Amino acid sequence: MGTALAAALIKAGHPTTVWNRTESRTGPLVAQGATPAATARDAVTAGGPVIVCLTTNDDVRALLEPEADALTGRTVVNLTNGTPGQARELADWAAAHGVTYIDGGIMAVPQMIATPGAYILYSGTDEAAFEVHRPTLAALADTKWVGKDPGLAALYDLSLLTGMYGMVMGVAQANALIRSEGIPAREFAPLLTGWIVAMTRGLVAGGAEALDSGRHLTDVSNLAMNKAAFPNFTRAFAEQGLRTELFEPLQDLLDRAVERGHGADGLSRLTLLLEKD
Amino acid sequence: MGTALAAALIKAGHPTTVWNRTESRTGPLVAQGATPAATARDAVTAGGPVIVCLTTNDDVRALLEPEADALTGRTVVNLTNGTPGQARELADWAAAHGVTYIDGGIMAVPQMIATPGAYILYSGTDEAAFEVHRPTLAALADTKWVGKDPGLAALYDLSLLTGMYGMVMGVAQANALIRSEGIPAREFAPLLTGWIVAMTRGLVAGGAEALDSGRHLTDVSNLAMNKAAFPNFTRAFAEQGLRTELFEPLQDLLDRAVERGHGADGLSRLTLLLEKD
Repeated sequence: MGTALAAALIKAGHPTTVWNRTESRTGPLVAQGATPAATARDAVTAGGPVIVCLTTNDDVRALLEPEADALTGRTVVNLTNGTPGQARELADWAAAHGVTYIDGGIMAVPQMIATPGAYILYSGTDEAAFEVHRPTLAALADTKWVGKDPGLAALYDLSLLTGMYGMVMGVAQANALIRSEGIPAREFAPLLTGWIVAMTRGLVAGGAEALDSGRHLTDVSNLAMNKAAFPNFTRAFAEQGLRTELFEPLQDLLDRAVERGHGADGLSRLTLLLEKD
Repeated sequence: MGTALAAALIKAGHPTTVWNRTESRTGPLVAQGATPAATARDAVTAGGPVIVCLTTNDDVRALLEPEADALTGRTVVNLTNGTPGQARELADWAAAHGVTYIDGGIMAVPQMIATPGAYILYSGTDEAAFEVHRPTLAALADTKWVGKDPGLAALYDLSLLTGMYGMVMGVAQANALIRSEGIPAREFAPLLTGWIVAMTRGLVAGGAEALDSGRHLTDVSNLAMNKAAFPNFTRAFAEQGLRTELFEPLQDLLDRAVERGHGADGLSRLTLLLEKD
């Protein structure tokens, strides 16, 4: 991802200094016009926002802490995947050292950087600093400012990815079931895409209305009906020789919903059941 | 659902005889022009295809078995939710009694019957019989014939619903996380819909290619990277006071994928890991 980000900056004409723990990784970027930094300190003092993208926020912490004095008065844009709590901790650390901290969540794989549809979510206490660097950051992907709590970019990022992983599991199961009868996945794909897309549009919008208003009662497809229909899935998967354990947490959640008297509510109620008692 | 189906037939001008175990349920349909049947036998002998929609296929069995002799030479269209195995059993029973059996899977809630976008999947050994009744069935929703194995309509139906339930879980989790910081779900909804829709389009099409070709290697987002990023979700949910158990089966699946040497493969590989060893 770091390589894709740096390449996008270079391509957009921004003077770019690159550093990687594994020096050979920066070779292709230098060939594209980047200035190589011999050390992390050289990189952070090169000028302009310091854009960091590592594997974890522990790596970010380990990299930045020794450079605290060199970072004072500068802006760090951290695009590493992490949690809201980690982002807030880094923001606190930065504030304590006079460093402006902007957290970012990249909604793209490296191949999508600087292509239409890709965007990066940003948050941080200093929105004015973000606005200063926004034109530079726009070279990477569309920019979406989500607020002054430094944890918000990670919160939005993880929320979107969580929604996606649910779909990924559903698609994996759907394909397993359809393939159990030898039907090519390509033949099934248009139906599957059409169905999930249509249901996503309806359920996300309808669910949001229900959650914000607190009115979960439905006359469309309530939790009692969903619970009653659910054994068909595990039975069909078992009949077709497939593993059924991915259904268990949802079955448990539906059981819990009905047990607690929410049988007449819609699927939006499930969100509330994920909150701890 | 039965009421919605009968109402659609009446509205389309088809002479319709209705029967329900709870007689009062058919009152509104009779007011719309349906002929009430005093008994199930009266209903099945009224003429035309016998359309059945009950809670479970056990109910269907219990209803039809005593009417076997009256059903001989007639066509039963069973729109009850069930498994492919149940549909095949009913088809075998029907064949043994000279009954033409068509199984159907309704891809709609009752409110969507006879509206654009709703469709019903059909399968059965006698495609010609289906073609005879197709114009009548088209009054209910678009018709999609999926093949001569009577279990296929249920297989397609359950596969599509399985894909949807994954999305439902993901959306419930995504909303729980975003709401944990007091962000209104309606504010988040357009981003969430946009992201899931875009990812569904890419992942279903790409995954189908991989599954049909058997080539799962990817340079985009492999299973080792997904496994490494995954603890961020459980950590963020725990930090925000949310339940994490819905992530466990996917974490287990990613762990198993990497353990078995599939770390460089894409998410499409997960489908194969749902097959029993």
